[in-house]
Amino acid sequence: MLKAMLQTFVLTAALSAPVVHAAYLNDAEIKQIDALENTALNSDLAYQIEESLTTEVGARMIGTEGDKRAIAWAVEKMKSLGFDKVWTDEVGHYQWIRGDVEAKVLAPFPQPIKALALGESVGTGETGIQAEVIHFNTLADLQAAEAGSLTNKIAFVSYRMQRSKTGKGYSKAVGARVKGAAVAAEKGAIGFIMRSVGTDNNRTPHTGITRYKNGVKKIPAVALANPDADLLINQFKRKKKVEFFLKVTAMRNEVVAVRGANVIGEITGSEFPQQIVALGAHLDSWDVGTGAIDDGLGVSMVMAATAHIAKLPVRPKRTIRVILFAGEEVGLLGAKQYIIDHKATLNNHLIAAEWDFGLGKIYSMQSGVGDVSVPAIAELASYMESLGVAYNKTNKARGQSDMGAVTDKGVPAMNFAPDGTNYFDIHHTENDTLDKVDAKDLQQNTAVYTVFAYFAAQADVDFRK
Amino acid sequence: MLKAMLQTFVLTAALSAPVVHAAYLNDAEIKQIDALENTALNSDLAYQIEESLTTEVGARMIGTEGDKRAIAWAVEKMKSLGFDKVWTDEVGHYQWIRGDVEAKVLAPFPQPIKALALGESVGTGETGIQAEVIHFNTLADLQAAEAGSLTNKIAFVSYRMQRSKTGKGYSKAVGARVKGAAVAAEKGAIGFIMRSVGTDNNRTPHTGITRYKNGVKKIPAVALANPDADLLINQFKRKKKVEFFLKVTAMRNEVVAVRGANVIGEITGSEFPQQIVALGAHLDSWDVGTGAIDDGLGVSMVMAATAHIAKLPVRPKRTIRVILFAGEEVGLLGAKQYIIDHKATLNNHLIAAEWDFGLGKIYSMQSGVGDVSVPAIAELASYMESLGVAYNKTNKARGQSDMGAVTDKGVPAMNFAPDGTNYFDIHHTENDTLDKVDAKDLQQNTAVYTVFAYFAAQADVDFRK
Repeated sequence: MLKAMLQTFVLTAALSAPVVHAAYLNDAEIKQIDALENTALNSDLAYQIEESLTTEVGARMIGTEGDKRAIAWAVEKMKSLGFDKVWTDEVGHYQWIRGDVEAKVLAPFPQPIKALALGESVGTGETGIQAEVIHFNTLADLQAAEAGSLTNKIAFVSYRMQRSKTGKGYSKAVGARVKGAAVAAEKGAIGFIMRSVGTDNNRTPHTGITRYKNGVKKIPAVALANPDADLLINQFKRKKKVEFFLKVTAMRNEVVAVRGANVIGEITGSEFPQQIVALGAHLDSWDVGTGAIDDGLGVSMVMAATAHIAKLPVRPKRTIRVILFAGEEVGLLGAKQYIIDHKATLNNHLIAAEWDFGLGKIYSMQSGVGDVSVPAIAELASYMESLGVAYNKTNKARGQSDMGAVTDKGVPAMNFAPDGTNYFDIHHTENDTLDKVDAKDLQQNTAVYTVFAYFAAQADVDFRK
Repeated sequence: MLKAMLQTFVLTAALSAPVVHAAYLNDAEIKQIDALENTALNSDLAYQIEESLTTEVGARMIGTEGDKRAIAWAVEKMKSLGFDKVWTDEVGHYQWIRGDVEAKVLAPFPQPIKALALGESVGTGETGIQAEVIHFNTLADLQAAEAGSLTNKIAFVSYRMQRSKTGKGYSKAVGARVKGAAVAAEKGAIGFIMRSVGTDNNRTPHTGITRYKNGVKKIPAVALANPDADLLINQFKRKKKVEFFLKVTAMRNEVVAVRGANVIGEITGSEFPQQIVALGAHLDSWDVGTGAIDDGLGVSMVMAATAHIAKLPVRPKRTIRVILFAGEEVGLLGAKQYIIDHKATLNNHLIAAEWDFGLGKIYSMQSGVGDVSVPAIAELASYMESLGVAYNKTNKARGQSDMGAVTDKGVPAMNFAPDGTNYFDIHHTENDTLDKVDAKDLQQNTAVYTVFAYFAAQADVDFRK
């Protein structure tokens, strides 16, 4: 089917656009890529992997028992899927324990508030804190507050993330989560509360990492569920002092070491085993859901894609390496460790792609490769057409998430853009569970990674050039 | 506008259906009902009441501080809206304190489980219980289990409620919640867990009353969120023993008396003040959301409808009585008290209507009135056409919820059927908050109750006949 479509494409394209010749794969290989696409589109392997991870492991924040089980699970799963080599590279961190949050408005109208500690927040101590809340619409407004103006107050940022297919609203909203506590503390605040970075209306707050600043007091930081942030704003509309109670039993134990691991598996190239096509996802998750979408989806599709290719009678020419990164959620720890551990062979990484965003079909692809190899990307794009993936020709892709750290070291990048419209309804919440996974979408996603991985491992092209 | 439409309707209907003459309202009254409809459709009064109740009061389970505040709020609000008489009738109950639930699968794969105590469940004690889980697809399957077969086990019913516009899936699902714990205990179980009666996929479990049986041990009973019930089922698929830990700190203090109240307000009829048109909703809510939809919507629309009519220069002929019932959630306590307190005047209640279901526009109306007054209902239906409300002519309505107890005593009933497609995503969960309210739908709902109340209080018709 693909070959026929490609021929049609070549003929049609000749009338209006530069011709894409199937110069990088031969007829047998085109047949193979076509068959792999069909296999992935009709297989429930990725879904089975996802079901296994979420049912048998669940939440897996670095340093927890869940993470240890996830590492063992991943090693076992790769082996059972027929990977040729599987190993782990240790990744270290310090301990953080979430604990619980008790939050309530005390005045003007007493009401309980649903909140979740931001990742790696300190706690309040057993007695909690009680203080007036000062409301800011945005992080910029908080930043503009006068020095000392928040002494003994709790700062509240209520900016609401906007929904979009590309997920671009996230970058506008996430600053408050990352920097808000430090900014508030610099101005004297004793606590930081914010509207969750999320697009839903569920009372399932969104966690995610917060960053303290050297020399600035670490203050407890929590995210309120969207309906609770609305409630607080409605109380502010009464023009009365808003008094708040916050107790956070989180513990940030910077002196206690914990261990995670990058789990790495390969199918070895039959001609150029040293040359690596890298597929990434992160194995860790936040501790509040079962990490089905963040990043169970990525884990499932890169493992399944590689497993589909591993079933071929002959290995592709180059090695396909799956890297399941550790500790992405707490600061790309696994990626940072990977570029240290594999510094000597990074220049053997021909291209790298990750999945760590989205909850729907992939609609677009973009490369970040050497100029000489752009025609190969155009040929790859032609194989993606039947999957509904458009070709963004700008060739400026940086790797996604963990792979960003890898491609920043000069490794060529390939990015696939999935529909992210509903992703931030669930991201970093207790709602990140298996039921959110659309099995058909996951088949399409997996087919895209399968076609990509086979092409990159088999075609005679060096993406570094 | 309505008058013109009615004339058109009469002309058109004459060709194919029995003619509806505007026999029950005169021209001035038809003008009035038209104006009232427009007022309600363009007013944000109902939304303001809803915003006030959810912001200033919030959760209000009978016997709690929230319920006390709600009673004071309702009395004050009715007075400020220009009601002629406002009073409270005391309603008694015993104390129940929700406490917390800690639930987790211990084996085959340890995972935390989101659960909420069913209403009025007993607790487990501080040490919790640990036991094998026995899975039943339905309450009927549990009922069919052999006597003694659940000794020292936890029973799990996983039936999933079906979504529908009418909400009919609820009655098929709710039996497990009401009876399941008692049935399981009779067979020896020490705990009862069930899939929430709800149509969503959020990790916000659905509470709701459970009923113990005299002479049968009271065992702790909790509802799991839908994703957590799915997870448990996926663990059962591994064909291994499922071991569960459950700790419920709920306290059912049957010897501790608590007090709620029906809050009742009237605008007094100008010609027949003894004759009562009754509009109902329940003031209490479960303790886990802010009771915005259950039943803040009902509270808001019946208060706003009456307030719109109270602004007319002359009161309608008959009294419009708003009854905000106490303790509906724990067993229609307020309704049961009302028919005792008002036994002597129940035969002066001409007709009764409640709102206690739905989260969308009203699409249908149905009466339960005397045969002689059916033509008046047909005329009322003609005034509802412009609001998109169809006329279900079966004339077999029983009052909804609390008003069911009232109409069972012979009071004529009017029921309005709203869209309930999404209602059971939220019902009895922490997600029952203001953001779920569609202000436009609430305007239509309120307009329907306004038109109905005015017609019933003004038209020369005795619905009892």
